[in-house]
Amino acid sequence: MINRIALAGCGNVGTALLEILNDKKKELDEKFGFEFKITMITDLIKGSIIDPDGLDLQKVLNAIHSTNSFEGFVKSKGSFAEMLEQSRATMLAEATPTNMETGEPGLSHIKTALGLGIHVAMTNKGPIAVAMDELTDLAKKHHAKMRYEGVIMSGTPLINMIHTGMAGCTFEKIEGILNGTTNFVLTEMENGLSYNEALEKATDMGYAETDSTMDVNGLDSAVKTSIIARILFDEKIPVESIDREGITEITVEKIENAKERGNKIKLISGIEHTKNGLHAYVSLKEIPFSHSLAGIDGATNAVTITTDNLGEVTLIGPGAGRRETGQALLADLVAMAQ
Amino acid sequence: MINRIALAGCGNVGTALLEILNDKKKELDEKFGFEFKITMITDLIKGSIIDPDGLDLQKVLNAIHSTNSFEGFVKSKGSFAEMLEQSRATMLAEATPTNMETGEPGLSHIKTALGLGIHVAMTNKGPIAVAMDELTDLAKKHHAKMRYEGVIMSGTPLINMIHTGMAGCTFEKIEGILNGTTNFVLTEMENGLSYNEALEKATDMGYAETDSTMDVNGLDSAVKTSIIARILFDEKIPVESIDREGITEITVEKIENAKERGNKIKLISGIEHTKNGLHAYVSLKEIPFSHSLAGIDGATNAVTITTDNLGEVTLIGPGAGRRETGQALLADLVAMAQ
Repeated sequence: MINRIALAGCGNVGTALLEILNDKKKELDEKFGFEFKITMITDLIKGSIIDPDGLDLQKVLNAIHSTNSFEGFVKSKGSFAEMLEQSRATMLAEATPTNMETGEPGLSHIKTALGLGIHVAMTNKGPIAVAMDELTDLAKKHHAKMRYEGVIMSGTPLINMIHTGMAGCTFEKIEGILNGTTNFVLTEMENGLSYNEALEKATDMGYAETDSTMDVNGLDSAVKTSIIARILFDEKIPVESIDREGITEITVEKIENAKERGNKIKLISGIEHTKNGLHAYVSLKEIPFSHSLAGIDGATNAVTITTDNLGEVTLIGPGAGRRETGQALLADLVAMAQ
Repeated sequence: MINRIALAGCGNVGTALLEILNDKKKELDEKFGFEFKITMITDLIKGSIIDPDGLDLQKVLNAIHSTNSFEGFVKSKGSFAEMLEQSRATMLAEATPTNMETGEPGLSHIKTALGLGIHVAMTNKGPIAVAMDELTDLAKKHHAKMRYEGVIMSGTPLINMIHTGMAGCTFEKIEGILNGTTNFVLTEMENGLSYNEALEKATDMGYAETDSTMDVNGLDSAVKTSIIARILFDEKIPVESIDREGITEITVEKIENAKERGNKIKLISGIEHTKNGLHAYVSLKEIPFSHSLAGIDGATNAVTITTDNLGEVTLIGPGAGRRETGQALLADLVAMAQ
């Protein structure tokens, strides 16, 4: 069966997905029996192109790489639902920019697709943070699948590990480094840069957005912690209820003092049981060098999950990146096709 | 749909699976829609019991815990195939002891089950090491599923991560600690015990078998490396072709000398591309404290996989244990039911 894929959002991540699909077309068929056509691409800036028989992926990529547009293709108009139906898509890859307050435009895209029984893979945190219940119900009602590996730790397969690999475990505690930008800044400050220098370097290297407010004030980590609370404990912990700290008050001096005590300072997110129920936090912690998260440097993310059946399991991998996040979409698409 | 499960091998791991299933019956139904009955248990020592309507799991566990037998149950006789058919099982959990040369008795059990279109989850390395191709073909032919999470790193979900979580990645290299006993011995020697004292402690704590030859000579790690070569690179590397070293020559002095150089000695398994094709090894390596595997102490296992799309991903977790390995079977059973 050929999977007809619609892509919403053709920026860094969406383009990376197209590149990987184009490079690995033969391999994906041979290894997973995953045959596909890209039948629709829609992007806020580049416009929309549709071909139910499959767009010429190499030609699309050439246009993007040379003119950052869909030059040479006939643009389509219409509502998202009309375009989806015209494309005959069976799967939607949703990679529009994140809006943490409304979830839009991703939220509408996903609702429309699920309502048509189209499976959805997403990397956009907004819709999951805003409307996980509604989307889960909608998917169930229309027998559509929904996966969102890329919303946490990019393509590092944390969510698949929790849902499938650890199925049957009871989760006791989670602790980790969920934001690459802040961990990169802390690592660079250990190496002698000032806070501002380190943040500038993070932006230069593409880890931090031009506006890194949500990273450095801990909000990005808090949103991810809230999503993890739903996945691990089936509990709603609103982002506002999370004990949250950022890295804006950190100085080289504080880091040096910690080092003299044999410790490191890390921005750690976690959820644990207390007498008063679950406690979720994003907190600057001074941890000894021997701590399993002390060695997680740079833009890398890591999570340690404590369970009844397995004790501690730790997963370490990239937390961001265009190809890394495109990989998350790919793994989800392949899983949904099986 | 109710999944009828047959269990072959009711020793430590098989019993742990039954305990988990009994404890979590309600939760598994609510969370995964996983309903089950245990309709057959067969064990070389305890004998075989069958009830196509479902054995009373609590009663079975009471008998095992009080008399280490199936006292109070009527024993069944017949060939494995006859018993399987009588039990109306739709899934087999295979947890008989490992025989690395013949794969038996697990291999025959698995072939029989797959031939009847019964899905198989196994923790027994033997059959996979001896006959992976044959079993894969047989499963395909009879539309049966086959999973074997527990053969490497017990319930730490490495194999699921490779097959599903990282689907679409091209694998470049793998490096890890795959044997808990030897890593435990090395850690204890760092803390001052002699080789013999450390090995004795490993046996006392249940990490090492009474006969720990296959652990300490590196053979157990080599078998796992060979299996990983198939999974990651689709290449057959016979165990005999793996550059293999054990820990039998290690002394406290060597460990102390390494420590003075700021290094640790670890038994590391790996596969990497070379000009002459894949090179697989199990080797005592002196690595700096900053190496990602240096902090892996005791019976814990860890693996770092290098890929094109994700760079390095590291998974750390238990490498052995009755409940940990029972968990591997459980996750596989739940995944096969979905």
